[in-house]
Amino acid sequence: MKELHIIKIGGNVLKDELTLSRTISDIAQLKQPLLMVHGGGKHVDQWMQRIGAEVKMVDGRRITDAVSLELAVMNYAGLINKHLVALFESQNRLALGMSGADLHCIRSVKRNHPTIDYGFVGDVVEINDEAFDWLIQKNIIPVCCAITADRSGQLLNTNADTIAAEIAIAMSKRYKVSLWYCFEKKGVLRNVADENSLVEKLDARLYAEMLAQNLIHTGMKPKLENCFNALTKGVQQIFITDSNGIKNIPHPSGTQITRS
Amino acid sequence: MKELHIIKIGGNVLKDELTLSRTISDIAQLKQPLLMVHGGGKHVDQWMQRIGAEVKMVDGRRITDAVSLELAVMNYAGLINKHLVALFESQNRLALGMSGADLHCIRSVKRNHPTIDYGFVGDVVEINDEAFDWLIQKNIIPVCCAITADRSGQLLNTNADTIAAEIAIAMSKRYKVSLWYCFEKKGVLRNVADENSLVEKLDARLYAEMLAQNLIHTGMKPKLENCFNALTKGVQQIFITDSNGIKNIPHPSGTQITRS
Repeated sequence: MKELHIIKIGGNVLKDELTLSRTISDIAQLKQPLLMVHGGGKHVDQWMQRIGAEVKMVDGRRITDAVSLELAVMNYAGLINKHLVALFESQNRLALGMSGADLHCIRSVKRNHPTIDYGFVGDVVEINDEAFDWLIQKNIIPVCCAITADRSGQLLNTNADTIAAEIAIAMSKRYKVSLWYCFEKKGVLRNVADENSLVEKLDARLYAEMLAQNLIHTGMKPKLENCFNALTKGVQQIFITDSNGIKNIPHPSGTQITRS
Repeated sequence: MKELHIIKIGGNVLKDELTLSRTISDIAQLKQPLLMVHGGGKHVDQWMQRIGAEVKMVDGRRITDAVSLELAVMNYAGLINKHLVALFESQNRLALGMSGADLHCIRSVKRNHPTIDYGFVGDVVEINDEAFDWLIQKNIIPVCCAITADRSGQLLNTNADTIAAEIAIAMSKRYKVSLWYCFEKKGVLRNVADENSLVEKLDARLYAEMLAQNLIHTGMKPKLENCFNALTKGVQQIFITDSNGIKNIPHPSGTQITRS
């Protein structure tokens, strides 16, 4: 089985232009088949502020009203996605920016939660791994943003970490998949204020311990749950790392998430 | 040679949700190979107003400063493009939203005008007709927005009418291309206030006459110049029509632009 590296970038890596262009230039040098996923919540927050709209979050997940959805589509599928694709173009790599609606590559349904109304938030129900494989075989880098669509054509805001994990799971039928979550910290830290407190290997037991000790930050919890879920469903290896860690691909870097 | 229909939609067709979804539903029924191009200037104008920025135009063409470019990318490549793709998805048609940076499908250079500084405006220099053909042969509808990129990865705002014409010219090597400009009026009108004053056939001579009589509206001039240019470079037929005209494809509708 061939290798496939799925790299999700988010957080401040997307906000700092210098870090971002260096990271894309590093990724563009990689010889292995690649697929990118990105978020961009901080851009949306800034725009919400700019137009005087209120950002609503519950448990590290955004409540997406009509205005937030509009700004999410504009920022994720527009501004950030095309900037990333153009950065790849400047490195002579063929990239294709996509939302879940493009080539029906990620189908979702509007979240139906018994107590919380998340608004226009989608939960992934189907990945078109055939479409992704078709692109990858042509040496194209799919660059997926965190916007998906349901069958009726409603666009939905979807967690980018989850999208990365779901694509990784679906592509595991065809490839030996390594999933890289790249953000502004070196990986999972015991003490979020101390970059030297990196956890090099995080298995389910240590995760449970750290959770009990309240050492897992709100935003990190869904990310790690996505990781453990993906590992039980065929994804070969998963790392959480910073933009320096990406340079070392395919060698391990940051925190490796393992089942045991 | 196989037929290819290139449909550019713009103006108020994009602003009126009911007209837009009907138009996309009509287009989705067509059996012929298709490629879509869209603008969205009115969305950008609205956003400019919303954030208190000034819209600058010269001869029907936008001056694109940094803020206008950001909003153009957000609206064209994000909001409008993904909405169109999702509408096709709801009609069970496979569409792929693209900027010029995606698959390097439209390369441009920043406009270098002797007297006017157009800002971040791109002039098309190369169309990747191989990439478009590859998609069309897979029964995918490419949906191209009016954002392109230069080789350095700079995104550039580009006239959507010109993009449609340039793609039509490039695809004429491979297909018998019909180009349809769809906007809110029935076609070219002798009297812009009278929908019954439709010009059914507009050739270069009549165009010169109407120009001399000041009957060609500022926004229509560059569109028509694109048309005549495309006809001299291999495009089979060109029509300017409204959303009702699109239903009649492949039969002529609105104003047919002809060389003579």
